[in-house]
Amino acid sequence: MVEQKPIATLRHESPLILNITNFVVANYVANGLLALGASPIMSNSIEEIEELSSLCQAVVINIGTVDSLQLEIMLKAGKKANQLGIPVVLDPVGVGATKYRKLAVHKLLQEINFTLIRGNAGEIAYLADATWQAKGVDAGKGDADLTEIAHTVASRYHCIVALSGEVDVVSNGIDLCKIYNGTPLFPKITGSGCLLGAVCAAYLHLNLSPFQATITACTHYALAGEMAAKMISYNKTGQFYTALLDQLANIDDSTFIKYARVEYV
Amino acid sequence: MVEQKPIATLRHESPLILNITNFVVANYVANGLLALGASPIMSNSIEEIEELSSLCQAVVINIGTVDSLQLEIMLKAGKKANQLGIPVVLDPVGVGATKYRKLAVHKLLQEINFTLIRGNAGEIAYLADATWQAKGVDAGKGDADLTEIAHTVASRYHCIVALSGEVDVVSNGIDLCKIYNGTPLFPKITGSGCLLGAVCAAYLHLNLSPFQATITACTHYALAGEMAAKMISYNKTGQFYTALLDQLANIDDSTFIKYARVEYV
Amino acid sequence: MVEQKPIATLRHESPLILNITNFVVANYVANGLLALGASPIMSNSIEEIEELSSLCQAVVINIGTVDSLQLEIMLKAGKKANQLGIPVVLDPVGVGATKYRKLAVHKLLQEINFTLIRGNAGEIAYLADATWQAKGVDAGKGDADLTEIAHTVASRYHCIVALSGEVDVVSNGIDLCKIYNGTPLFPKITGSGCLLGAVCAAYLHLNLSPFQATITACTHYALAGEMAAKMISYNKTGQFYTALLDQLANIDDSTFIKYARVEYV
Repeated sequence: MVEQKPIATLRHESPLILNITNFVVANYVANGLLALGASPIMSNSIEEIEELSSLCQAVVINIGTVDSLQLEIMLKAGKKANQLGIPVVLDPVGVGATKYRKLAVHKLLQEINFTLIRGNAGEIAYLADATWQAKGVDAGKGDADLTEIAHTVASRYHCIVALSGEVDVVSNGIDLCKIYNGTPLFPKITGSGCLLGAVCAAYLHLNLSPFQATITACTHYALAGEMAAKMISYNKTGQFYTALLDQLANIDDSTFIKYARVEYV
Repeated sequence: MVEQKPIATLRHESPLILNITNFVVANYVANGLLALGASPIMSNSIEEIEELSSLCQAVVINIGTVDSLQLEIMLKAGKKANQLGIPVVLDPVGVGATKYRKLAVHKLLQEINFTLIRGNAGEIAYLADATWQAKGVDAGKGDADLTEIAHTVASRYHCIVALSGEVDVVSNGIDLCKIYNGTPLFPKITGSGCLLGAVCAAYLHLNLSPFQATITACTHYALAGEMAAKMISYNKTGQFYTALLDQLANIDDSTFIKYARVEYV
Repeated sequence: MVEQKPIATLRHESPLILNITNFVVANYVANGLLALGASPIMSNSIEEIEELSSLCQAVVINIGTVDSLQLEIMLKAGKKANQLGIPVVLDPVGVGATKYRKLAVHKLLQEINFTLIRGNAGEIAYLADATWQAKGVDAGKGDADLTEIAHTVASRYHCIVALSGEVDVVSNGIDLCKIYNGTPLFPKITGSGCLLGAVCAAYLHLNLSPFQATITACTHYALAGEMAAKMISYNKTGQFYTALLDQLANIDDSTFIKYARVEYV
């Protein structure tokens, strides 16, 4: 059964994940999905994006370096996936930073039904209209209640929300789950959030509710980071970048069950 | 003599390799060529591509994230290289996946004389019109005879074909060579095929027949992977990514001769 | 005081650095800035570039894969930064290689006042109209006096010049500083120069003269490379790529003072 051995099932099925993502992290996301056991494809080509969208098992839309041409590509891919019932993940990287990112995310949310929105506190706070001081593409700081803003965004857009941070918060608008695994090294490497978005997409293909699939994905990922960080001394961000890939590949269902620290609220 | 010490000669001459490649692997290909001892240049600029093409010792055309503008750039670069007798390598990444990739590769093969086509079984099978079940940009599976499809494509396009897989197969349309070095970790990292295409391009600059240069390149690369994999435990794909670069730099002509497992059929 | 503990101050202030850079190194530059303690943002979007420019503490313009659209983006970003008094760094990657790169750099130098130009000997020699045999984006070789060409370019463009090589040379047109830290592994990885340009940008935000900030940045970086190289055997370019990030994060003000080998000429 899928529910009992999600990691083994994921590796067995090796879903094809289409990533329309930023050029900074494309390589790391591809390697991360391969380490996980999924099969990545990246494209930024309007000529083929609908066809790729219909071939894949999930689509990731990441606005980290969006421009008007890429926005058009994202809209095509997302709409096609919606038509075919393929899960779509939105990663609204640095959405609060510029007017153009706000506009792009607004348009995406208006025209595509997302299965999941994954972001850091600053990004989810922006979508919840909460006060927050983000910093470029980094989380920044603020006083908003993370549980509340996750619920607000999940309810507003009828989707799952995964808010990544020291503690990950996953909401479906009603239920809430907190994941206590992780490491402070995550924000010290580029693309750690972007890769998580792609990992979630791979899990959304499984025979689980999107809420449960997202929790499993976030826990697998947070645990991989935690185990990677344990093996290296503090401040070795280069080594962590490599070790995270190793641990994504290394963790199996029994390790997962043993070390997962998940709380349903 | 070049024939006796190809690796030393390559490092001494350090050929400049122009890569028109996908944005996912550009960084890894550049680092891989530097580790090998060659000199990489990447460009996606129509304004300078013909000039760069005439400056370099070989051109790599990799369609991993091709769009209509990049296709135009590839055509300009390839035609200029053909005029000047500079070797050109085609890497038809995921060619069977979408109509647009098929069209792009068709146009490239029609307008450019390639010295070498390098691809996985799925890609070469597509070019041979053989039945095959590829999966996105991954090799996938099928029953076609690899020797036969390599010969077919080499004959059809009057070039060398390097088909990468568990065993690499190199054909010039008549002669065939199999390379038994390698590691199952290659398909677990992104760009392992793309980097091989660039490594082949560097070797094509040497004073060897294109057939012999391709065999030497594929063997050097497969051996580097094999030696990298030996040093790390299974599943450490992050470490393998790094170790492959180290071994590309580390292997010399005497190591090569000692460990190469090459069979001329 | 900033002057006494520049590294601690940099990490405390964690300046936001906008990078308009080439797609080959964007990932490494982002990871390098994070390792250093700064906060990177990458964009290639004309729709948001002026807004990002006004949000950040410094701008890096790197022409490694420039095309006409990106040139327009660079001009917008640089002019906006000039209006607001935000430091701007130019990295004229491979400027001598093609007519288009020359034209692009000419236009950038004409319309933007750069705080710093950072390049290798081949690039700075080109800007000084000195004879030099560059090779693609690599330094190449020539007989020009490095001190003289650094002075010439600094005087001509009223800015700081950092010429990277075996010995780094920093000039403000009058004063000169040589930095003897470093490692021959730097040119064996892609983006080692590009990342240095971004590191300089982060230091330019500090309360130091641009000349002093650049010297501190180049010394921190060269020392990080030197310490990274010490820990690994020769030819391990993959490991060096990772270790350089680790050392950028690891070096503190007391290590800096102990090992810096800087000479004011």
